[in-house]
Amino acid sequence: MTNTNRIYELSEIADEKLKNCEKVEQEIIFELKSLLSYGGYVGLAQINPIVGDIEYNSKKIANYIKYAESIGLDMIVFPELSIMGYPIEDTIDRHPMIVQENIKWLEGLAKITRKTTAIVGFVEQRAKSVGKRFYNSAAVLQNGEIKGIVRKSLLPTYCEFNDYRYTEPSSLSGMQLSNTLATGECVQADSKLFNGCAITICEDCWNDSEFFDRVLYSRNPIEELAAEKPKLFINCSASPSRAKKEQLKHNMLSFISSKYKTPFVYVNQVGATDSISFDGTSRVYNSKGELVARAKSFEEQLLIVNPEKGIGKIYPLTKGLEKSLTEQKVFTLEYESDLERTYKTIIQGIRDYFNKCGLKRAVLGLSGGLDSTVCAVLLADAIGKENVFGVSMPSGITSIESKSDAEELAVNLGINFMEAPIGEMVTTTTKCLNKIFEIVESKWDFRYKKSFTPDNVQARSRAMFLWGISNEFASCIPIATSDKSELYMGYATINGDMSGGFAPIADVPKTKLFAFARWLNANREQKNAIPEAVILKKPGAELAIDPKTGKPLIAEDALMPYEFLDEIIWRIENKNECYNDFLNIEFVYEKHNEVTNEQKKEWLDKFYKRMSAALYKWSILPPTVIVEARSINKFDYRQPITSGRINYKGYDKSYIAQVLS
Amino acid sequence: MTNTNRIYELSEIADEKLKNCEKVEQEIIFELKSLLSYGGYVGLAQINPIVGDIEYNSKKIANYIKYAESIGLDMIVFPELSIMGYPIEDTIDRHPMIVQENIKWLEGLAKITRKTTAIVGFVEQRAKSVGKRFYNSAAVLQNGEIKGIVRKSLLPTYCEFNDYRYTEPSSLSGMQLSNTLATGECVQADSKLFNGCAITICEDCWNDSEFFDRVLYSRNPIEELAAEKPKLFINCSASPSRAKKEQLKHNMLSFISSKYKTPFVYVNQVGATDSISFDGTSRVYNSKGELVARAKSFEEQLLIVNPEKGIGKIYPLTKGLEKSLTEQKVFTLEYESDLERTYKTIIQGIRDYFNKCGLKRAVLGLSGGLDSTVCAVLLADAIGKENVFGVSMPSGITSIESKSDAEELAVNLGINFMEAPIGEMVTTTTKCLNKIFEIVESKWDFRYKKSFTPDNVQARSRAMFLWGISNEFASCIPIATSDKSELYMGYATINGDMSGGFAPIADVPKTKLFAFARWLNANREQKNAIPEAVILKKPGAELAIDPKTGKPLIAEDALMPYEFLDEIIWRIENKNECYNDFLNIEFVYEKHNEVTNEQKKEWLDKFYKRMSAALYKWSILPPTVIVEARSINKFDYRQPITSGRINYKGYDKSYIAQVLS
Repeated sequence: MTNTNRIYELSEIADEKLKNCEKVEQEIIFELKSLLSYGGYVGLAQINPIVGDIEYNSKKIANYIKYAESIGLDMIVFPELSIMGYPIEDTIDRHPMIVQENIKWLEGLAKITRKTTAIVGFVEQRAKSVGKRFYNSAAVLQNGEIKGIVRKSLLPTYCEFNDYRYTEPSSLSGMQLSNTLATGECVQADSKLFNGCAITICEDCWNDSEFFDRVLYSRNPIEELAAEKPKLFINCSASPSRAKKEQLKHNMLSFISSKYKTPFVYVNQVGATDSISFDGTSRVYNSKGELVARAKSFEEQLLIVNPEKGIGKIYPLTKGLEKSLTEQKVFTLEYESDLERTYKTIIQGIRDYFNKCGLKRAVLGLSGGLDSTVCAVLLADAIGKENVFGVSMPSGITSIESKSDAEELAVNLGINFMEAPIGEMVTTTTKCLNKIFEIVESKWDFRYKKSFTPDNVQARSRAMFLWGISNEFASCIPIATSDKSELYMGYATINGDMSGGFAPIADVPKTKLFAFARWLNANREQKNAIPEAVILKKPGAELAIDPKTGKPLIAEDALMPYEFLDEIIWRIENKNECYNDFLNIEFVYEKHNEVTNEQKKEWLDKFYKRMSAALYKWSILPPTVIVEARSINKFDYRQPITSGRINYKGYDKSYIAQVLS
Repeated sequence: MTNTNRIYELSEIADEKLKNCEKVEQEIIFELKSLLSYGGYVGLAQINPIVGDIEYNSKKIANYIKYAESIGLDMIVFPELSIMGYPIEDTIDRHPMIVQENIKWLEGLAKITRKTTAIVGFVEQRAKSVGKRFYNSAAVLQNGEIKGIVRKSLLPTYCEFNDYRYTEPSSLSGMQLSNTLATGECVQADSKLFNGCAITICEDCWNDSEFFDRVLYSRNPIEELAAEKPKLFINCSASPSRAKKEQLKHNMLSFISSKYKTPFVYVNQVGATDSISFDGTSRVYNSKGELVARAKSFEEQLLIVNPEKGIGKIYPLTKGLEKSLTEQKVFTLEYESDLERTYKTIIQGIRDYFNKCGLKRAVLGLSGGLDSTVCAVLLADAIGKENVFGVSMPSGITSIESKSDAEELAVNLGINFMEAPIGEMVTTTTKCLNKIFEIVESKWDFRYKKSFTPDNVQARSRAMFLWGISNEFASCIPIATSDKSELYMGYATINGDMSGGFAPIADVPKTKLFAFARWLNANREQKNAIPEAVILKKPGAELAIDPKTGKPLIAEDALMPYEFLDEIIWRIENKNECYNDFLNIEFVYEKHNEVTNEQKKEWLDKFYKRMSAALYKWSILPPTVIVEARSINKFDYRQPITSGRINYKGYDKSYIAQVLS
């Protein structure tokens, strides 16, 4: 075994201790120290902080710092805002005392440092009378002191990012004087570099106008620092995992390190904050832009590297992602390369939401359909099968197959299972409602001839059961099982299936969900947990009978083919295309199916009408896991509910002239 | 009658037509034209746009422009983003086609202009490769052309504002060349002024460092333009109504106009977009900082003024607001001066949400308690008593008084009313749940000895009825009746009383609600609609019996005195105070009641614990009307749900040193 291999073997043992805030065994420390004695080693500490829990985070950081010192690392680098956790959002604006407290912990951390330099992210208050009240900062700690401060210049404010809501951009890049801490002053230190290192925070490295067609900011801190000829770039990040982002990130960081002929150390937060899942996957590029080290994805780790000597270890990306390090430009049903990442993103999202909220158990309805099935599998893997209760809640419409598929799944997974028919609830509710409706009808007109009330009563009766269990048993929440395609169409019942404490697959489109189910069957340790019948059957809510067929209504008949629907969603979210673009584009679905122009228009009209009406539902969605490149999660995308009258088809100029004349 | 009085008499008749996009009668036009023939008149067109409905907005704007031309105004000024409506939020980022469309309508509007200059707000795309994709702009239209463009420099990004999420700050203030339209270039026109007028957009006038102790931006467009010696400042705004904001706004605009010895024309949007209610109240200050004209609040109006001659009319503010044109610095139970504004804000909020979403009718539970009572009154006033259905849904716990109070209120208001007991629903649900719980208990431990399930089943049964009615009858939504104090404490049932299509009083604290009820009784046309008993009774959910008293549990016993609770909330939101501050402050409640230090700590501990657990509930709140200076509305305030472990008490330095050592 080479020395390098041995470093990583020992590190993996140490990581298990560090994750749990425990001390690493002396023998391991001793051996590692001798292996690292040549010097020049840097630790990439990708930790999973709990947002706002500055005591927990600081203790964790302290444990890593002490360990780094004990094995003789030159430097240990933590992610963005590591003491506070990212993103803390408006919390610090309303409760600024926690910012003062995080400074106290920062000063405490400085005191425990010795030779090993630690770079630690924190929120810094600004006493100044111009600008926002805070900076997003990182402190350089060494020998018991704060040696300098780096402040974030570029503040992402789009999608899930809201940095400019509560932090002020720094006017300077690089090292600033430590005696400006919490004053709000930006004063350059003697050098912009610390020991030859150019330190930046997250977005500060995402603005190279040679790499991007379009950049968001006029300054480029990397370029400003490159002028100082650093020996190393260091970036402290909190960068969420989203579809196709890994490729972009890899290409960009590789481009920057080769452009400036300077190695690049990138340290990313891991773990989830509410809907946002950070993937870790910290890494180092050498001065040729080649990847020399990469940490694990979705796991806490301290990755030891020697950036100047190019010593490191490249842990694999989630499977499939390796293959396609180019950006996806077209819609495709080939989801394979993104399914392991999807899986790990959601598992981490569920697990961290539960852990960080003090939850332990989940209850969900098992309909025998694809959505609840996939949710059950993910929950079993994320929080343990013993902590999942699947409840089959058949109505008169529910087929024998649906019941047996649900039970088979539960048995396969080993989760808790019960059947609780909703017939009695539906009967009583319907009886009560019919009386009520008669009275209402004596006062109000416009009663629907064919309403969704019977469908919704079923869905809400089920939710009544699930919320009941969550109220009665400690640390338990019900799960909302809606998928992205159906949420886009508002095809979910308020206080029914769209209600819950968490919505694991709300950002997974239906066509991807089919591929995902097959992937789960093939790639989980336990093969084929999902009954084949669940994957083969056509999705439908089993809430109403189609008068044409006498069988339960199929969702695609009520909506449109999922392949077509998912392509509209993808094109809107990824390409910002609109109604008229769609008319002129051949959809993947059209390559295999005859679609008349009339039919296409009907589907498009239905899509925009339903989407506009769904905006309210989006606003009350429970926390979801953001998975795709764009989403309808309300921390990622905001559209006024009252904007439902937007005309997405646009106008002729002659029509405009006529209306205004 | 003086000429001036006659101008306003005629204008009020014209306003009724303009509001409905109708043509004003020729006689009125003729007479007004002669009254205004001296020239120098400006129209402040405070319109109520529908966000994203650019056809509706443009038609309305065109009608005003044509009218302004017909009566010979020099200029007509519209609010910020008047073609698009404010705030359009991320919608334009995802669907940029609507921005291109709004440019087409802008060009159409330019073509219909003649002598009268029109200043119209719109969203402008930027072709440039640096920065966000849009500007928040206003165009100066005259003689069929776009004469110049003004672009917003200061982008509010806090509370309900998210401008920097989707728009780029302009690097220049004042007039820019019209041939830069949609290019993304900022190029100064020959003069920064248009005909001597210095035009700015909203936040651009909110950054005077002499007026504010703290300013958010380093530039001050007003100061930049003042250097050009304008004869007039013009500001196009979309500024929401919030507690105490009027005073601040008045003081600031008065300060600026007197500081620069220049009259100031301020035109504000009116109407609500989702949770945000804009109050209009456009106004003009003369060069001494004196108010010379002020439009109505919460109503569309075209206010005609002659800023240089000081001709105008001052319409009254909402009652009470006049008296206290100083900023409130302390918590007080004296709500009187803000109650009419509160009323109008909520009425407009409800009405516009319903109108803009195509809704007509509301159904709500009437418990005989304060919250549902006040909601019923507000709904009756906002959408018409015939469109409101009050449903009394008694359970076994419900007192005779609660039932009769509910009915008395409904009769007083003339709204539709019915009684629908929930006994049968509760019995069936409880029976089903008990069976379910037995099975769950065979697999899971930690069943609560005393759970909230029975309480929640009642609340959810009621919601089942209300949502049923909303599903069965067209254009109808159920109303969530929770108030701010109880939402802060999570004292509301998910899928029960906190669920609904709209939450009218979710930003009104309980102590204010008592004052508000009395105000409604005294100030509505129909006096004393609210039974005195409703105001006198102690609030409680009537969901459970207090074992100590044998009577329904009182909310203040479960929580803490509302006066104390509301002061904590006010201090956190308005003063950013924290746990330790509260220990050292005497609360208003303490002036009249003996409170031991131990008791105070107990309440504070309970407050922070309950608030931390309520964060999830805040995230799924239906749209509310933002009323107070700060709120928990999710478009106004965002805190991660997983931040529930924040220690709001802070830490001793010695404790920190010990933990980290």
